[in-house]
Amino acid sequence: MESPPFDQPCPIRDVLDRIGDQWSLLVLDALARGTLRFNELLRAIGDVSKQMLSKTLKRLEQDGFVARRVYPEVPPRVEYALTDLGRSILEPMGQLVAWAEANHRAIVEARRRAAGGVA
Amino acid sequence: MESPPFDQPCPIRDVLDRIGDQWSLLVLDALARGTLRFNELLRAIGDVSKQMLSKTLKRLEQDGFVARRVYPEVPPRVEYALTDLGRSILEPMGQLVAWAEANHRAIVEARRRAAGGVA
Repeated sequence: MESPPFDQPCPIRDVLDRIGDQWSLLVLDALARGTLRFNELLRAIGDVSKQMLSKTLKRLEQDGFVARRVYPEVPPRVEYALTDLGRSILEPMGQLVAWAEANHRAIVEARRRAAGGVA
Repeated sequence: MESPPFDQPCPIRDVLDRIGDQWSLLVLDALARGTLRFNELLRAIGDVSKQMLSKTLKRLEQDGFVARRVYPEVPPRVEYALTDLGRSILEPMGQLVAWAEANHRAIVEARRRAAGGVA
């Protein structure tokens, strides 16, 4: 982290607020493997409700991470895919997720020591 | 992000909640350059209040990112330094911060288009 761009603290907070939730991460991860329809996403993620998936997709679309394409068929086919922007965050986000997975136990243990007053 | 560890979504949310705020990022960044006393941190960060800096340091200490060392002098000297855990998050966090800085404008513009209904 040499000369990190910390002079505008808002962007990171804004980005983390939108991307840092469980469902957004899971949707981005699922779409990283290719274009999917709504029901395919639903199955890929597993325990997400239709309502929550719909809400998450809408927000990701509004932020420009996901593109929604409707094909005029009967019934209409709707597909979701990552945009270039969405694809570009996979690498840095994946590294932080990996860090969190690897170090979460250490953090939890540090908290327990702090709470117990034990060094 | 090949085979990302998404099977436990909690850690990343937990980590982002604690680290993803402006003051935590600024404190980690300041301490990345070396051990500092409270007043030195206050000056390094600039527009943070004593109360907020104190609260931020306490949380970072509880989570194991920052070590606080008190020297029995008069007046007591208190120094803050990154732990190995704190140092280890600098790289992935810095990459995400850099991504956010570089792409925040694109996100804001995507939102504006979405709000305006313009493709």
